[in-house]
Amino acid sequence: MTALPPRHRLFVPASLAEGGEVELSPAQAHYLRDVLRLAPGAAVALFNGRDGEWTARLGALGKGRARAQIGARLRPQAPAADLWLVFAPIKGHRLDNIVEKATELGVSVLQPVMTRRTVVSRVNLDRLRANAQEAAEQSERLDLPEIREPVRLERLLADWPAGRCLVHCDERGQAPAMGVALAGLPAATQGAILTGPEGGFAPEEQASIGSLSQVIAVTLGPRVLRADTAAIAAITLWQATIGDWRG
Amino acid sequence: MTALPPRHRLFVPASLAEGGEVELSPAQAHYLRDVLRLAPGAAVALFNGRDGEWTARLGALGKGRARAQIGARLRPQAPAADLWLVFAPIKGHRLDNIVEKATELGVSVLQPVMTRRTVVSRVNLDRLRANAQEAAEQSERLDLPEIREPVRLERLLADWPAGRCLVHCDERGQAPAMGVALAGLPAATQGAILTGPEGGFAPEEQASIGSLSQVIAVTLGPRVLRADTAAIAAITLWQATIGDWRG
Repeated sequence: MTALPPRHRLFVPASLAEGGEVELSPAQAHYLRDVLRLAPGAAVALFNGRDGEWTARLGALGKGRARAQIGARLRPQAPAADLWLVFAPIKGHRLDNIVEKATELGVSVLQPVMTRRTVVSRVNLDRLRANAQEAAEQSERLDLPEIREPVRLERLLADWPAGRCLVHCDERGQAPAMGVALAGLPAATQGAILTGPEGGFAPEEQASIGSLSQVIAVTLGPRVLRADTAAIAAITLWQATIGDWRG
Repeated sequence: MTALPPRHRLFVPASLAEGGEVELSPAQAHYLRDVLRLAPGAAVALFNGRDGEWTARLGALGKGRARAQIGARLRPQAPAADLWLVFAPIKGHRLDNIVEKATELGVSVLQPVMTRRTVVSRVNLDRLRANAQEAAEQSERLDLPEIREPVRLERLLADWPAGRCLVHCDERGQAPAMGVALAGLPAATQGAILTGPEGGFAPEEQASIGSLSQVIAVTLGPRVLRADTAAIAAITLWQATIGDWRG
């Protein structure tokens, strides 16, 4: 009978190998000691996005300081999904929702895009990274999504990679249903989902997006979805159709 | 050229017909007057879940009181989707997230279910109803989802309708991927999605669920999803596969 893996998973930037020791972040030390009230010797699991997942034992737990001794490897690093989410930042908890859910659902790159109707002028990337890390730890991912600097829509479209299709969730258009539109794509297709701000893309932005040959315009049902709902639904359909949910 | 429909949509319980007049709720009156700062004569759209969607003009706007004069019909009532969400209530904003997203995505019935590991002892149905109404108004739905009284899992399973399949999102099982499992169902299938509490169903609950002949067990990808994420993803896949998103 195999022991259950440790319940608490932590991302660490350091390399992981049996017998090694890693320093945890002050936030992790605080969480383990003051929130979870774990004692030295407690088991945790560690991952870093490169070396798989490892058991570890906590050493001394000080105020804002903790170290862990690395034990056996639980899982090898698996190849990660290759799906980007390109999203116009929105306000408040709906932005947190996008980052958390995209991470759980397996997105590899989160790319904020600034559009004509984007009302958020500054994106707190540290907050996005903290949300993504928490979601990765909780969802048993073995890596973190990469969170990129915001870019203007014109620049994003001008620099768009030739081999990556861009799924444009087009609320008001006459595009085919997303499930239908994706059904013909080969399984190894590199993809990205594009979602707009709460007010949608401006007409000239719609035209620029529509003129890019890598774009696949799709609709997500007969109702009007909020920006975070559209992002979550589109990622789900990608993963189920050509991503890592095909089972 | 047709005029754009009014931007603000309101649910009212009253019957709607051209030339009629309806009293809006105190909360709606407050929102129209003090938040949106609309004046008498402003256009809104009204729906009640039975008579379609109608234009209306605001009459006098008092403190917590407003009336509207009904104009022309914008859309006839369309047949609604027939998909239930049966969900173990969870804490805080994630419960709001389930209700809001399920409403946007077109669920017809929201059924809270109490399970062994459900830590929420009381569900605030008024709060759920208010969230659902706001999401319906915003998403251009023509009806509200029905929000049922919480029921214990044993009772729910004992009374489960013979002709309605129950899709069980089984995190840790070896069930087929949801997209694959649903692919063979006829389009008119009556369905429901079942999602558990944050700690999952207890083993004896898993067994009871598995023994019901209407149950289809499915998995939602290789990661561990939070309860709200699983609900949103499963509704999306149902709607795209056999619901009203097939375009």
